[in-house]
Amino acid sequence: MSRPLRVTVWHEHRHEKKHPKVQEVYPDGMHTVMKSAIEEHLGADVEVRTALLDDADHGLSDDVLDETDVMTWWGHAAHGDVKDEIAQKVAERVRRGMGLVVLHSGHYSKPFKLLMGTNCHLKWREAAEIERLWNVSPGHPITAGLEKDYIELAETEMYGEHFDIPDPDELVFVSWFEGGEVFRSGCVWKRGAGKVFYFRPGHETFPIYYNPEVRRVLANGVGYVAPPAGVVPYRAGSPNIKEPLSPIAATHEVDASLHKH
Amino acid sequence: MSRPLRVTVWHEHRHEKKHPKVQEVYPDGMHTVMKSAIEEHLGADVEVRTALLDDADHGLSDDVLDETDVMTWWGHAAHGDVKDEIAQKVAERVRRGMGLVVLHSGHYSKPFKLLMGTNCHLKWREAAEIERLWNVSPGHPITAGLEKDYIELAETEMYGEHFDIPDPDELVFVSWFEGGEVFRSGCVWKRGAGKVFYFRPGHETFPIYYNPEVRRVLANGVGYVAPPAGVVPYRAGSPNIKEPLSPIAATHEVDASLHKH
Amino acid sequence: MSRPLRVTVWHEHRHEKKHPKVQEVYPDGMHTVMKSAIEEHLGADVEVRTALLDDADHGLSDDVLDETDVMTWWGHAAHGDVKDEIAQKVAERVRRGMGLVVLHSGHYSKPFKLLMGTNCHLKWREAAEIERLWNVSPGHPITAGLEKDYIELAETEMYGEHFDIPDPDELVFVSWFEGGEVFRSGCVWKRGAGKVFYFRPGHETFPIYYNPEVRRVLANGVGYVAPPAGVVPYRAGSPNIKEPLSPIAATHEVDASLHKH
Amino acid sequence: MSRPLRVTVWHEHRHEKKHPKVQEVYPDGMHTVMKSAIEEHLGADVEVRTALLDDADHGLSDDVLDETDVMTWWGHAAHGDVKDEIAQKVAERVRRGMGLVVLHSGHYSKPFKLLMGTNCHLKWREAAEIERLWNVSPGHPITAGLEKDYIELAETEMYGEHFDIPDPDELVFVSWFEGGEVFRSGCVWKRGAGKVFYFRPGHETFPIYYNPEVRRVLANGVGYVAPPAGVVPYRAGSPNIKEPLSPIAATHEVDASLHKH
Repeated sequence: MSRPLRVTVWHEHRHEKKHPKVQEVYPDGMHTVMKSAIEEHLGADVEVRTALLDDADHGLSDDVLDETDVMTWWGHAAHGDVKDEIAQKVAERVRRGMGLVVLHSGHYSKPFKLLMGTNCHLKWREAAEIERLWNVSPGHPITAGLEKDYIELAETEMYGEHFDIPDPDELVFVSWFEGGEVFRSGCVWKRGAGKVFYFRPGHETFPIYYNPEVRRVLANGVGYVAPPAGVVPYRAGSPNIKEPLSPIAATHEVDASLHKH
Repeated sequence: MSRPLRVTVWHEHRHEKKHPKVQEVYPDGMHTVMKSAIEEHLGADVEVRTALLDDADHGLSDDVLDETDVMTWWGHAAHGDVKDEIAQKVAERVRRGMGLVVLHSGHYSKPFKLLMGTNCHLKWREAAEIERLWNVSPGHPITAGLEKDYIELAETEMYGEHFDIPDPDELVFVSWFEGGEVFRSGCVWKRGAGKVFYFRPGHETFPIYYNPEVRRVLANGVGYVAPPAGVVPYRAGSPNIKEPLSPIAATHEVDASLHKH
Repeated sequence: MSRPLRVTVWHEHRHEKKHPKVQEVYPDGMHTVMKSAIEEHLGADVEVRTALLDDADHGLSDDVLDETDVMTWWGHAAHGDVKDEIAQKVAERVRRGMGLVVLHSGHYSKPFKLLMGTNCHLKWREAAEIERLWNVSPGHPITAGLEKDYIELAETEMYGEHFDIPDPDELVFVSWFEGGEVFRSGCVWKRGAGKVFYFRPGHETFPIYYNPEVRRVLANGVGYVAPPAGVVPYRAGSPNIKEPLSPIAATHEVDASLHKH
Repeated sequence: MSRPLRVTVWHEHRHEKKHPKVQEVYPDGMHTVMKSAIEEHLGADVEVRTALLDDADHGLSDDVLDETDVMTWWGHAAHGDVKDEIAQKVAERVRRGMGLVVLHSGHYSKPFKLLMGTNCHLKWREAAEIERLWNVSPGHPITAGLEKDYIELAETEMYGEHFDIPDPDELVFVSWFEGGEVFRSGCVWKRGAGKVFYFRPGHETFPIYYNPEVRRVLANGVGYVAPPAGVVPYRAGSPNIKEPLSPIAATHEVDASLHKH
């Protein structure tokens, strides 16, 4: 693409206002740190803006949506405060080609659930335990720049299987947790003309988005779900193709008045 | 399963009331013919009931839903008349293990769209043209009993790509249409603990559900998406697993009050 | 199927002859214990024979192959002693519809590698550590009869990612290991008209095949990859379809002598 | 990648020497036309060399293989003349990260069959009939630059289902043929750290590789299977990880002498 990729980092931004611990870890909000990770790795190829739940229209006006190539989504405690109408618009933008990177507790966000068609349940535990995200897809662009075949995080919230998602089109990372569980922590799906990447790391009380490897994968993910230039636009609606491309032998009379889509 | 499989054939049943042509093809309603196809092939292994849009609660009370192992769904002109609440319940039953066979224009039904996460758009044409459904998955249980590697239907409505669905977990049939299009006409997905089979044939003005091979595939599909006996029940909700299965080394204090799912 | 399913349990059967520890765990050979697991759960629906590496033709004459619906395969130290010709025949039987259950160190067996198209490398460690196989596909027939959403084994050999296999068509189990690794330990692929199920448990010095849940999954796997009755037979070869099914408009002269497949 | 992508166009190059018709269509060999298609679209980002069956080592010395990021493969009548050793090396290079684009009758080539694990049978017919390749994956990078949602070719050889391949990881094109068949004509698989793209068009007696849309997809395919910069190298072999990443509770004595991989 000759123009920069337009990325919108969407963030709930409620924990930072309420919890001293979160303020301490993310004094300027988690969104600023996620933004910096994307800019660090994609540099001049990208223009990143942020949008917050408590902005007007959650920061997601039609103009912003139209001008977004890739959106990242972090939410946790206030999924219910996202307006259904906005969530539907975000999901529809994905189907029409926008990339979406869903982070951590965004597994329960409205746009993600609308796109998955499942409940996205999981198990969880707060115990500051070790997580290792194992690369099960070497050679995948999302794993570029990783030095080892796993990412180790010293203190994390646990997410465990069964993770109630459709079987991913691509499974990139599987997590090991100290307490005994596993989790499909890096997953890609296509929906319509758009791609969704779910990436698990990101709890608000741990400094996860300062981790160099997490930052790298976040930026890689943004690049991976970015819409390619010049693809046939997504076709909304179900057109009636009255004129066949090849001849149809006359057989019987069709009473077209019977059918409407 | 020692007890019979409990199947509910859901049908919109509006065309038959309005259009003489449809009445002529399906004088007792399409649902009776679909029911007979399932009974013809699954016999004593199955108990089939029917439920219609204009029944109370569309025939889908909580009791009926609870007692249904597999549902088949045919709708076309009145998708919007299906109550959102009922559509949500059907989708949720699938996630909890019920099988769902979606037929023909059911591609635009509310339960199917809720489960897919896409718009399910397609192309279409009314021209009474030849369709051949090619078997691209020989050995698949859904194709058992077919004598050839394709099913030929002499007069059909065309459905063409792009069919806006998630990539199927299993692609069983691909259709060829006389007028020049192709279509993924037999597709399987998992959602939660349940399976969905989309099968394209079934237009209301053509006697499709009398075709022996279509009947066979419809019954095979019901058998294929049936929930296996004795599987671990679907877990609704996201439990907090406070006690790890394996020991976690003490690291730092977690302030559990911060986090609620 | 009205007749019983014909299962051949193939076993390398070398460790038992050499190592007192293995003799102690499996005094009559591992194959007898695997056979008993299948018979325990599938009972009268199944006829199980065994075949050993050191039998003539490894116990896999053409007659045995022709009469086998599902084969299970355990090998470890003597993969190289399996004749290429026999390995090719086993792979070809799978493509023509036979089910194959590959166990534990069978990941490096010739038939498995021929069917996968990859090197099937993995990591490993001998440390008698805990393994938990997490069910990531609730509702899957292979998991029927399991009481919990994981199987725990107290002492196992570790297998770790990256496991160099094609992305599975279905991922059923993911293992957690005490020492820090994960592994895709229950995987299904289709090849031709046949299915392959890889199931990790089974080390020779641990009494894994006496574990009730492992036995259950082994039997479930045999049932799952069994060829359905009445499917269109696999078509060997590439037929020239001289007569089109639909008319082709005359365009130019084709010099058929140019082309031979 | 800062350096150009290194592409090797491998070609059988036998038909051109024997058949006046083929000489007429491809006077300088099909490989020169395929090379020009890649250069036309990837320009300075790519360095393309060609290698021919009748070159020493089929033009595929270890040095050439080591210096190839993406290989394209066209063969038809002389698959058997490709040395097994070379075919194995090509397949192994794919597993270690090289991209492979297999064209038309290359479906029966040794490297493709080694990587698929299936027989790759299909149906065929020489009748100069119309083919339409329908885009079933809008938004896919391989389809960038296409103006319509199908590619129409006026005169082609037919390839029909069942195409005996593993279910593709990504299905991009499905072909319609005038004579009545369909075919999965654009398919992607991962093998090890490398990607394989099969693209059907390309018969030697029709000027297929001059078609602008075919040329575009060929170049897109080369770009799509190119190895990303900086990914963790493919790990050949199965290392013994003696030192666990996390502590293992002492349980019993393991007699390590028993086990060798």
